Amino acid sequence: MEIVIIGTGNTATILGRKLKAAGHVVVQVFGRDTTAASKLAYELNTESTNYWNVVYRNADLYILAVSDIAIKEILEELRLPDKTIVHTAASVSKNILKNAATHFGVFYPLQSLKKESTHLPDIPIIIDASDESTLKELEILAQSISDTVVEADDEQRMKLHLSAVIVNNFVNHLYALAESYCNSEGIDFTLLLPLIKETAERLDYISPAQSQTGPALRNDTDTIKKHLEMLKKYPHLKKIYETFTESIFTTH
Amino acid sequence: MEIVIIGTGNTATILGRKLKAAGHVVVQVFGRDTTAASKLAYELNTESTNYWNVVYRNADLYILAVSDIAIKEILEELRLPDKTIVHTAASVSKNILKNAATHFGVFYPLQSLKKESTHLPDIPIIIDASDESTLKELEILAQSISDTVVEADDEQRMKLHLSAVIVNNFVNHLYALAESYCNSEGIDFTLLLPLIKETAERLDYISPAQSQTGPALRNDTDTIKKHLEMLKKYPHLKKIYETFTESIFTTH
Repeated sequence: MEIVIIGTGNTATILGRKLKAAGHVVVQVFGRDTTAASKLAYELNTESTNYWNVVYRNADLYILAVSDIAIKEILEELRLPDKTIVHTAASVSKNILKNAATHFGVFYPLQSLKKESTHLPDIPIIIDASDESTLKELEILAQSISDTVVEADDEQRMKLHLSAVIVNNFVNHLYALAESYCNSEGIDFTLLLPLIKETAERLDYISPAQSQTGPALRNDTDTIKKHLEMLKKYPHLKKIYETFTESIFTTH
Repeated sequence: MEIVIIGTGNTATILGRKLKAAGHVVVQVFGRDTTAASKLAYELNTESTNYWNVVYRNADLYILAVSDIAIKEILEELRLPDKTIVHTAASVSKNILKNAATHFGVFYPLQSLKKESTHLPDIPIIIDASDESTLKELEILAQSISDTVVEADDEQRMKLHLSAVIVNNFVNHLYALAESYCNSEGIDFTLLLPLIKETAERLDYISPAQSQTGPALRNDTDTIKKHLEMLKKYPHLKKIYETFTESIFTTH
């Protein structure tokens, strides 16, 4: 497939790498940041541009991998009659694309993508499209770079994204709070990495509701009291501790 | 080393398996639950008992792997002059053991241990002891089952445990809340597993404070508002969402 990638950020970069690795040809990278665009184009063995009037017109697919705000701005200028365009955003309706091209859809990678990554993680791809033939086309493309391809409409995609915010953004924030606490107390945060990985990997075979443990679950008030005492200097983390202790106790 | 394991729960079982796999001899399992004790003894190719007066007297080490409350109860009965005893508890002082045996210490596995596990995870071992020779002995034993062995006193061990509660119990609770939300909304929670694993594995090479992303970090009020609207039916999760959104925003 001949593909134009619009965007130069994390999503554009990682999707570009995955697509190239699967044998697709990225014919052009569009980016308003010339340096970033030429860097990504070089990596994907293609050319870059930052002028709409020279965007390649004969690609099979245009992937709009930019921020939610940039999608709106770009769509004011971009018209690709008879072509297929997709965006990669979780929270933006598919129909925002309806005036930009004849065929349109969504190609949402349900993964945290960082261009600094030295590996390409597994990426479930969530697709949606304006019509059956476009959907089929996107499904085939997605299957060429992922073992997990699922169709979901705007509403379902938003729900997936909300869940992703919980298990990625919020979980990562807990890691960051723990790291900050360890650093302040002279404790080595990396000692916790095997525990962190085991907690994540265990989900393959046991539901998190079943594997819950800890002082809050046991209503071990002695330990909880000690911990809150230890967190006196950390009011922010103390509040999180109290919220979770109550939430775990109430849930179980 | 000849070892007596006191306890039949998750810690006793997993430590027993690790020790056996490293070539140590578990000479006896003590447990008040006869069925559990004989089951673990059978797995470890040894005998079990539930009577203090028949506890094997010539072991090199007695590992007290029971709950915090059970430690106190057992220590009312157990006297092992000239022997070495350790407990495996995060939040219990080393000195609780000082009347039970001449040499004593702590052998705390910093991992979430489940006897149902089909694999043996990496387990950092946190040690402490009454004297230098016991510490050395515990260090050698710990190194025979783990690549990560660290000395920490009562206070440092408590701090590690508090951190473990955050990155294991609290993180797992977020997984459970997300799973429950997905189930209620007819969304497949397993689609999130690659994201969950990537979030954990990334800590090997990037600090969580640096890799934070998401609507709260970007102060993307449109998305946050949509999410809170979607959580109207889930007041409990909505409160967690608000707490994290504020906490992430304040931290960064």
